[in-house]
Amino acid sequence: MAQGKLYGIGVGPGDPELVTIKALRLLREVPAIFAPCKAAGEPSLASRIVCQLDERLSPKIANLVFPMSDDEAELDAAWQAAARSVAEKLNSGIDCAFIVEGDPFLFGSFIYLFDKFAGDSNQPIEVVPGVSSITAAPARAGIPLVRGDERLAVVPAPSDREAIRRVLSEFESVVFMKINPVFDTLVGVLEEMSLLDRATVVVKATTSEERIIRRLADLKGQKPGYFSIMMVRR
Amino acid sequence: MAQGKLYGIGVGPGDPELVTIKALRLLREVPAIFAPCKAAGEPSLASRIVCQLDERLSPKIANLVFPMSDDEAELDAAWQAAARSVAEKLNSGIDCAFIVEGDPFLFGSFIYLFDKFAGDSNQPIEVVPGVSSITAAPARAGIPLVRGDERLAVVPAPSDREAIRRVLSEFESVVFMKINPVFDTLVGVLEEMSLLDRATVVVKATTSEERIIRRLADLKGQKPGYFSIMMVRR
Repeated sequence: MAQGKLYGIGVGPGDPELVTIKALRLLREVPAIFAPCKAAGEPSLASRIVCQLDERLSPKIANLVFPMSDDEAELDAAWQAAARSVAEKLNSGIDCAFIVEGDPFLFGSFIYLFDKFAGDSNQPIEVVPGVSSITAAPARAGIPLVRGDERLAVVPAPSDREAIRRVLSEFESVVFMKINPVFDTLVGVLEEMSLLDRATVVVKATTSEERIIRRLADLKGQKPGYFSIMMVRR
Repeated sequence: MAQGKLYGIGVGPGDPELVTIKALRLLREVPAIFAPCKAAGEPSLASRIVCQLDERLSPKIANLVFPMSDDEAELDAAWQAAARSVAEKLNSGIDCAFIVEGDPFLFGSFIYLFDKFAGDSNQPIEVVPGVSSITAAPARAGIPLVRGDERLAVVPAPSDREAIRRVLSEFESVVFMKINPVFDTLVGVLEEMSLLDRATVVVKATTSEERIIRRLADLKGQKPGYFSIMMVRR
């Protein structure tokens, strides 16, 4: 029996309409869809996006649990288990999709699965790119990201003040991901560099819970929350 | 009469199926669509993408000419003329879409139009993000762009060897745009840094003319052509 094909599919930043025509077609065609979630019984954001688009997809979606953890061994065990579940289907000749918010290869959890299967030349894999929050957030905020010869850096927000300062000095446009843990440090450096009014935070871009925060002072003492990105344009 | 709404719509990297559901819906709804092209009578890539998807869109697409030029005055005149054509429709209360390949705010030509209209608070504008070649090319080449705490730089390829060297030293993943004019310099620096086998060029990702070049030595003496990007992963 031929091996099933594995699709890594980006389903966009949150608005179900920002799913691509290709992603929707493939999700309707494949018999099995896997979606990442943070804990057993918790909803998966990616699966919520596609089910809003077509609720008939729901019965064929299985959640795979990836705990929010920094423990490498725990994470690796979760990925091994996930890879086994997916491999079982693929080995039975069943085409499978693994869906992720945004884009599969831009900080997407599909990468871990890809790493486990890509070495096997008998395993057909196709990656379907999606709209990333890195462009969706600027679109929502009305802030052009880069034009002409400008340079863009996309970085998990560093905890090191000097690293923050350097990336802000060298790039016309910086997108900081994972801003929660270092939010106060980030705001402090922006203040020192007189860039605070050049920074915008977008929370859950394109979803019904979207927030666009243009005056970062309004966030003092609180954190912007998960699925937030900060754009700084010099 | 109410002002028409202006949509800046990303139509993705080339494959018509990578257009979003939202983009297609809006293009069917609006009475007027503008598309950028390089010379009068030349086809617009963005308009070719959407017409492959739905040929009934063709009659309402008007091309706007933006010459390939470094002459600021010539370019500005082209943009002024384009803005006038669009403003005429909007002022008659007609909703207009301006379509661009990839994403409107990531090196998209929509930015120039946005700059001309965004200052007018009476002008409703909506930007619809699209799949960018920056994630489509890695998807096609099977090269994860960034994972975990990695850092990504997206830069027009610099002509300065030191600048190339610096960005390659500081970022785990670098996407070089506009590689044609400096291709030999770029390859030279990659060789010096022993990174040549970490670089991949993708030409016209997701189109019928797509080429994926993993051995850059194969390109010696030629240029990869327009719509090429180079990814380097350390």
